[in-house]
Amino acid sequence: MNIGVLGAGQLGRMLALAGYPLGHTFRFYDTAPPESLPPAAQLAPYVNGRFDDLAALDAFAAGCDVVTYEFENVPVGAAMHMAESRPVYPPPRALEVSQDRMAEKALFASLGIPTPRFAPVDSVDDLASAIAKTGLPAVLKTRRLGYDGKGQAVVRGVPEAAAAAARLGGCNLILESLVAFERELSAIATRGRDGTTVIYPICENTHHEGILRCTLAPSPGASSAAAEQAHRHVAAILDHLDYVGTLAVEFFDTGDGLLANEMAPRVHNTGHWTIEGCRTSQFENHIRAVTGLPLGSVEPLGHCAMVNIIGRAPAADDMLRLGAKVHLYGKEPRPGRKIGHATIVASSASELAGPLEALRGLVLAANQGERI
Amino acid sequence: MNIGVLGAGQLGRMLALAGYPLGHTFRFYDTAPPESLPPAAQLAPYVNGRFDDLAALDAFAAGCDVVTYEFENVPVGAAMHMAESRPVYPPPRALEVSQDRMAEKALFASLGIPTPRFAPVDSVDDLASAIAKTGLPAVLKTRRLGYDGKGQAVVRGVPEAAAAAARLGGCNLILESLVAFERELSAIATRGRDGTTVIYPICENTHHEGILRCTLAPSPGASSAAAEQAHRHVAAILDHLDYVGTLAVEFFDTGDGLLANEMAPRVHNTGHWTIEGCRTSQFENHIRAVTGLPLGSVEPLGHCAMVNIIGRAPAADDMLRLGAKVHLYGKEPRPGRKIGHATIVASSASELAGPLEALRGLVLAANQGERI
Repeated sequence: MNIGVLGAGQLGRMLALAGYPLGHTFRFYDTAPPESLPPAAQLAPYVNGRFDDLAALDAFAAGCDVVTYEFENVPVGAAMHMAESRPVYPPPRALEVSQDRMAEKALFASLGIPTPRFAPVDSVDDLASAIAKTGLPAVLKTRRLGYDGKGQAVVRGVPEAAAAAARLGGCNLILESLVAFERELSAIATRGRDGTTVIYPICENTHHEGILRCTLAPSPGASSAAAEQAHRHVAAILDHLDYVGTLAVEFFDTGDGLLANEMAPRVHNTGHWTIEGCRTSQFENHIRAVTGLPLGSVEPLGHCAMVNIIGRAPAADDMLRLGAKVHLYGKEPRPGRKIGHATIVASSASELAGPLEALRGLVLAANQGERI
Repeated sequence: MNIGVLGAGQLGRMLALAGYPLGHTFRFYDTAPPESLPPAAQLAPYVNGRFDDLAALDAFAAGCDVVTYEFENVPVGAAMHMAESRPVYPPPRALEVSQDRMAEKALFASLGIPTPRFAPVDSVDDLASAIAKTGLPAVLKTRRLGYDGKGQAVVRGVPEAAAAAARLGGCNLILESLVAFERELSAIATRGRDGTTVIYPICENTHHEGILRCTLAPSPGASSAAAEQAHRHVAAILDHLDYVGTLAVEFFDTGDGLLANEMAPRVHNTGHWTIEGCRTSQFENHIRAVTGLPLGSVEPLGHCAMVNIIGRAPAADDMLRLGAKVHLYGKEPRPGRKIGHATIVASSASELAGPLEALRGLVLAANQGERI
């Protein structure tokens, strides 16, 4: 099949790398100028256009058997428009929900999935009642277009909240209680066109400055009860949305149950370890799902750790000597920019510890003196 | 690095799929017209030219940091010419040896590696003395440009040998004794720029009509003594040639020692199982070697079987449902043409048997009534 992908970043690149072996061809659509050679454009035809240009999207989709996306801020209207003429997976409804933190939390609540306490904030006048609902400290977030910790502020009092609200635009905000959690988990799952679902082993994630730094999988810290809860929640979301493709849901593990934080209707950074760490990666299963093929086993192949390469990359030699698998996205280094990741698969947790520590050290050292 | 690859078939395609994650870019050079879209041209820039057009090769290589090949019939002169201006790996000397069955056998002999008895045949007059050396039955082969069983004939007497010699061109032939073997084995190994060598678990291969049908690895039949011999022989060849990259050597296992049959100075069909079956595939290690990176572990991840998809492909669904990993090369089906392969990795030999039998059945059924 010819697969059209909206977005041409590293997620798209890894989708193509997983889909070529199945005999598929790819084309990518994104806003980046062609001369910037975005990651996916280095290995497939690339069309440069706006996401609200329906005529350009139609022309792009004309040669595609199925359209998918690697970027959750595709306008829902554009996705719905394309879905009139050809299959678009995941369903545009999943995009719609994930683009609005209020809709997302409301969906979780409707499915009985616990979340942090939350309330909408559309003006400074809403703050007091919102705080009454969430308690303090809380996190004020834009409802739309946040990513990697951007568009958020922790607030500890009303004046601080008012200043943050003004800074974040004053309306279309959501206040969420700041959760004291033991660990952050994510559940990655893929649902096929026929409703069959596979759920990957639960991932345990470390963020810093709002950006994912490290994923351990299967999660060494999550209890089996927590893992089972995460599986149940992600399955409920997939079925409710009649979802097709790979979905990620992030949770706070409070030690006394999970609270759902957010979802991403696409392959996810916390699932990159599945390339080497599982029989079938999140990327391959996404491609299988959207093309109507049976899904593959998600059996883990060991104790896995994925470390994001942010800013500048260490020498590939050094990472490879640790036994890591290295993934570079063909992006120019820049402070705070994800330009690659590296994965270690070990046969025991104790064998994982040393190389992981060394790998994290290499990434830190490569960025010494700069924000990473 | 920008890697130039001579040849744009499926081996080149799989080299690119293994090399992109390391941040490399690729370009391919081959004789196929661009509109035929050879397998590697579907995912990287493609230049169409003759292998004896030194000016075109120079222009191709101008933007490359290193040049490698996926096709062993690149003219040695062209490879040597390119090597004057930039690194070309594997070394052209390896090409030269592997292009001439006499030179190949002479190399094996010089390194103390046993081979079937052999003798050159350059005219009908040579046949009697050659047969005296090899015995009968024997195999008459062209010295150059044979592949997949083409350019060979089994002969059982002098008249038959004379007819075969005429059919094969009358000169530049080699007669080899037909070996009664228990199994065919191959050793795949990669040697880095610094001389470090990794040798994959020995593979056991089944051919039919001169074309590889199935590889089992690690070989269930080879004794540890045979595996150890194969490792020693391939290491001797690599060191002698100061080789850089992946090399394959095929052996007959007589049950009473190995006889070397031929070598290929490139990634090899009998090593395709390493994509899922080893920590580091033959393709990734080839790319690491030619770019000067440290080689990766060749630890096997289970009991593996690779089945070639020849002629027409079974439905991908059916193969995936068996737990196979499917690799389609983007080639049009044609009787006798390799258009893909599928690999099964199981945790025990007994778990491998059922799916393997079913997979072979699917490939046979897809080609019912046609030569496969």
